[in-house]
Amino acid sequence: MENALGRLLPEFLSGYGNVAPFTGTFELPPVFERAAVRVTPVPPSGEKRLPDIETALVECGVHHGATLSFHHHLRNGDRVLNMVLEVAAKMGLRGLRIAASSIFPVHSPLVEHFASGVVESVCTSYVAGPVADAISSGKLRNIAILQTHGGRARAIEAGELLIDIAFIAAPTADDYGNINGVDGPSACGTLGYAQVDAECARRVVAVTDNLVPYPACPAEITQERVDYVVAVPSIGDASQIVSGTTRVTQDPVGLGIASTASKVLDAGGLIKDGFSFQTGAGGVSLAVAKYVRELMKDRKIQGSFAAGGVTQQIVSMLEEGLFRSIFDVQCFDLDAVRSYRENPRHQRMSASLYANPCNRGPVVNRLDSMILGAAEIDLDFNVNVSTGSDGSLLGGSGGHSDTAAGARIALVTTRLKAGAYPKIVEKVTTVTTPGASIDVVVTEAGVAVNPGRPDLTTRLVTAGLNVVPIQRLYDLANDGAESRIRRKDHGGGSDRRVVAVQEYRDGTVIDVLRQV
Amino acid sequence: MENALGRLLPEFLSGYGNVAPFTGTFELPPVFERAAVRVTPVPPSGEKRLPDIETALVECGVHHGATLSFHHHLRNGDRVLNMVLEVAAKMGLRGLRIAASSIFPVHSPLVEHFASGVVESVCTSYVAGPVADAISSGKLRNIAILQTHGGRARAIEAGELLIDIAFIAAPTADDYGNINGVDGPSACGTLGYAQVDAECARRVVAVTDNLVPYPACPAEITQERVDYVVAVPSIGDASQIVSGTTRVTQDPVGLGIASTASKVLDAGGLIKDGFSFQTGAGGVSLAVAKYVRELMKDRKIQGSFAAGGVTQQIVSMLEEGLFRSIFDVQCFDLDAVRSYRENPRHQRMSASLYANPCNRGPVVNRLDSMILGAAEIDLDFNVNVSTGSDGSLLGGSGGHSDTAAGARIALVTTRLKAGAYPKIVEKVTTVTTPGASIDVVVTEAGVAVNPGRPDLTTRLVTAGLNVVPIQRLYDLANDGAESRIRRKDHGGGSDRRVVAVQEYRDGTVIDVLRQV
Repeated sequence: MENALGRLLPEFLSGYGNVAPFTGTFELPPVFERAAVRVTPVPPSGEKRLPDIETALVECGVHHGATLSFHHHLRNGDRVLNMVLEVAAKMGLRGLRIAASSIFPVHSPLVEHFASGVVESVCTSYVAGPVADAISSGKLRNIAILQTHGGRARAIEAGELLIDIAFIAAPTADDYGNINGVDGPSACGTLGYAQVDAECARRVVAVTDNLVPYPACPAEITQERVDYVVAVPSIGDASQIVSGTTRVTQDPVGLGIASTASKVLDAGGLIKDGFSFQTGAGGVSLAVAKYVRELMKDRKIQGSFAAGGVTQQIVSMLEEGLFRSIFDVQCFDLDAVRSYRENPRHQRMSASLYANPCNRGPVVNRLDSMILGAAEIDLDFNVNVSTGSDGSLLGGSGGHSDTAAGARIALVTTRLKAGAYPKIVEKVTTVTTPGASIDVVVTEAGVAVNPGRPDLTTRLVTAGLNVVPIQRLYDLANDGAESRIRRKDHGGGSDRRVVAVQEYRDGTVIDVLRQV
Repeated sequence: MENALGRLLPEFLSGYGNVAPFTGTFELPPVFERAAVRVTPVPPSGEKRLPDIETALVECGVHHGATLSFHHHLRNGDRVLNMVLEVAAKMGLRGLRIAASSIFPVHSPLVEHFASGVVESVCTSYVAGPVADAISSGKLRNIAILQTHGGRARAIEAGELLIDIAFIAAPTADDYGNINGVDGPSACGTLGYAQVDAECARRVVAVTDNLVPYPACPAEITQERVDYVVAVPSIGDASQIVSGTTRVTQDPVGLGIASTASKVLDAGGLIKDGFSFQTGAGGVSLAVAKYVRELMKDRKIQGSFAAGGVTQQIVSMLEEGLFRSIFDVQCFDLDAVRSYRENPRHQRMSASLYANPCNRGPVVNRLDSMILGAAEIDLDFNVNVSTGSDGSLLGGSGGHSDTAAGARIALVTTRLKAGAYPKIVEKVTTVTTPGASIDVVVTEAGVAVNPGRPDLTTRLVTAGLNVVPIQRLYDLANDGAESRIRRKDHGGGSDRRVVAVQEYRDGTVIDVLRQV
């Protein structure tokens, strides 16, 4: 069958089930049922400290095929996922499902667990490195499920993604399960993604390398959510947890795109008191923040909030009074960790508060503007941030689709080409985010506005911006032979095996990924 | 039938259902199911501001017999409950169930709503004033349900107490439902009791007199929990919200009891590094805090945490470094509000985190000591804080039973008599808290230790405290004719109509209250 974007999907996928096709218009259900949760009460005399991960797995009733969840605030420095899986493998467990909010190169031992059958299923919002390669090359037994950050929160709350045991990598914890991310050798800031897991999992285990006297303070995740606490020598490699080196691009082309993007937001009427803003941590995105910051300072504008994954750039804007507040689901650098620790206006948000489309209104709903990236964007404004042009997995939505759907102006910045490869394509190899939720594409050769936003076209033209049809950007990007060669790769009609589904935030399937 | 304390209970009560008798030993269920919650999603374009309470009731689908919940952080200054019920009455609603965490004299208009049939059922943890009188005299159609603070959280989470619409009296809110209690003319501090309602109710309405630009910061209850926001001129009478006048008793007898109580805690081996403590806001309880404070200062002891309902006394102890942290479910005075606003070590706790026996371990489980009051205490150490000696409702457990069950030493301070009436009785008029969870009674004439704690008897005797059998305290208290006259009043065997059930924290019925 085809979904609303014309993507060819199987009706049923073994190990996944019936495929609900993306419908094009995202209609919220009138009622969303947050599922019941089975909790194991702890009596007054109860203790939660356990000597090791194996005991925790046993006490939590782990079984073949169990779903274990992890969060990615320690990013490429995370040691907890590997630690738990190593123990699980030694225990002889098989067929586990790994529900990790993101997967990084550091998690490469998973590949071996795929081969041995210890891990049979993966559910995540972003995956890069050897694990992504293994999935693309068909080494995972079941189909990988790619979700958005908000879609993951929705699926967990709905009970669709039922977590048997959530492992919380806890930079600080006490012996009764109060947890925070602001202190300890592996401090990573807010634990926004883990919060949903802690609320909804049947069993919750805190793994910490900084066990402090009761009560840990602040308590970001509180004791009534946590079954057990295990102290280990190290949960993370501090040098890989946060970069501390994220920098505004110095490249003139990137700076030009960023400057244009800031003018688009301004022409769109957004940059005024109460303005709200989110951007990723890439060099061009940070440059957009830089230009927006200058505009705000010049005009003495105070925005309402910045959201995100938070970087030093955004922290500076808070500290300069350019925003009243930050909503932070994950700290990207040490400045963000410090600010989150010290500044009460730098607030945490759970993944659900951030982006779950089915709650009573996530923060993305209140975004004026979101600055997005793209591996590819097509003539229908569909964006691919999941795969390379050959269809191999190298990312995933993260919050891309969520913020695009929520923001008043969802703006993609991209160059026309990456090296010799065009980034503006006829049809994206994989749809991550539907074009209907993308408002503007900004390139070095002009700005294309989604035809669904004629109001915006008028504003941008009036402001003197170089507005062109997206077809024009496509033509400019596709002027070489290389691009014609590779373009034949796209299309979902292949009979290669499906290795992953890309879910939209509502759980429908927006595209599939096939074996490469 | 009789429950484990010999209290005579009906097997079935119309308007309540089957009566589950208190079993004496509180055995936790192996699994507690936190019920599913039906949430109404809010789309990106959605707005939550509504013009008035009536519109909110309509939009929330109010119906005859609906359950409306309220919280009591505004105490005797609360205007929200009356405001909502006045509108409900005008709309012609009938048979409503009011689930209020506590009810104060200011809520006297409820009595009229009982008479008119607007309100048919009440579920609360504490009730004083005209509403209590009306319940006792049989003016409420259905049986009132008295719960503990932890039992209320448990019942709500379990779906036993299903809230159709929770009204959150919000000292500060934005137009999308982020709420805090620290700012605005009706600032009351933490909103711990409201948090459970906001998490579990089908519909949640924030009623505020301090609407601030989005996002309200800090956001104690966040937008994804809130359906609608209504701005009104005033949610509370600031002079009645917090007293600011709670003072240590000056009475020599009270001071003597308090001094002895502090010695009991010390002899019990509790007053050492890591000590944790909770006390109420009464004059004798505050005096205990004063003596404990002196002991801690003298010995340079740092406790782990103080919990509660928090007063200036406890705040001072935090600020002097005598405790590392406070867990606060409700601020009792302006100093507590200020401290909670400014000091990150003064942490909020929800009613569930505080006291729900069925989660993974509430804060009461970690209490070393709890200082309790009593209207009556009997030879089995059962405590009554629900009724007067004539059986008329004048209080309820609040957190009494919860903290008694959790604390390592649950200590009741009481004089032998209140005026001419003995407070040590053969059998309490109403059992609120079972004697099995009370460890020590401290009076001006000696200290009685529960026979179930021989270890404690030994320690107290060794420390030179005047330990006596509780029978001796009873004899001393009952040396006059008045007491013999009134003692005939007790006993559950009356054939008067049952007007209320006193539930224990697990939802079993520990006693019933009859019409007076």
